[in-house]
Amino acid sequence: MSELPPIVDLRQSQTALKVQRGVMRLLRQTYDMCCFAEVPLANGRRADVLGVGPKGEIWIVEIKSSLVDFQVDRKWPNYKDFCDRFFFAKPPELDPDIFPAEEGLIVADGHDGAVLRHAPETPLAPARRKALMLKLVRLGADRIHTLMDPGPK
Amino acid sequence: MSELPPIVDLRQSQTALKVQRGVMRLLRQTYDMCCFAEVPLANGRRADVLGVGPKGEIWIVEIKSSLVDFQVDRKWPNYKDFCDRFFFAKPPELDPDIFPAEEGLIVADGHDGAVLRHAPETPLAPARRKALMLKLVRLGADRIHTLMDPGPK
Repeated sequence: MSELPPIVDLRQSQTALKVQRGVMRLLRQTYDMCCFAEVPLANGRRADVLGVGPKGEIWIVEIKSSLVDFQVDRKWPNYKDFCDRFFFAKPPELDPDIFPAEEGLIVADGHDGAVLRHAPETPLAPARRKALMLKLVRLGADRIHTLMDPGPK
Repeated sequence: MSELPPIVDLRQSQTALKVQRGVMRLLRQTYDMCCFAEVPLANGRRADVLGVGPKGEIWIVEIKSSLVDFQVDRKWPNYKDFCDRFFFAKPPELDPDIFPAEEGLIVADGHDGAVLRHAPETPLAPARRKALMLKLVRLGADRIHTLMDPGPK
């Protein structure tokens, strides 16, 4: 268990952490999506927030805290291979028009969030959903287990 | 998220908590089972330890810390409806012969554990496994989320 990813990525900016908190509250409270932060995916990327709905729906939210943060990322479309809906999330001060008009968009701060534009649905293939669910079950269990028991002293 | 079960059940005895720790270490390290503690099941009971293997195998471990603890529980067979393998777990000082000879048995303390008798496999129906996996994904996400963000102050 020593190589588990930390729940909070210390490389994240304070702004991104606030947006993450607001996004997770929004998804949990308004959409009944249970949320993980920092989920490693099979393609080598990490999803900032990944929510799982009551019927197994999977949403991924990619946080962009600045214009340059968005501009340098050319691989964000790859997230769509791992979710039914994909959203960008931004802090309130960032211009919403920098994001592609056809993608979902969330605004959030450290307290709450709101969906500015809902994301189109592109359902996952059943085999990929099943594999992803298994991975998430084991990720969640390991993260909690590590917190409960950091291991033999 | 206010009604989430705590990760550690304060009603548990110190002995049971030590056995739980040893069981979870054993399952994680030796069998690659990622473990949850205190998992509420659809039948109203809670599994002391529930492990999920790399192929989605589900094991449930019921901890009995004393003879009376075992004797008063007449509903343990119900756990078998929610797992592929079922084990009892006991502290080292408890007589292994009090447990049914046809059931799996683990001995554990606060440091480690060992399988004394492996459990027979009774595979879950696919629909129940799928429903259980979804429930576990959401349980894990919520437990971590609550730790990350206890909610708006």
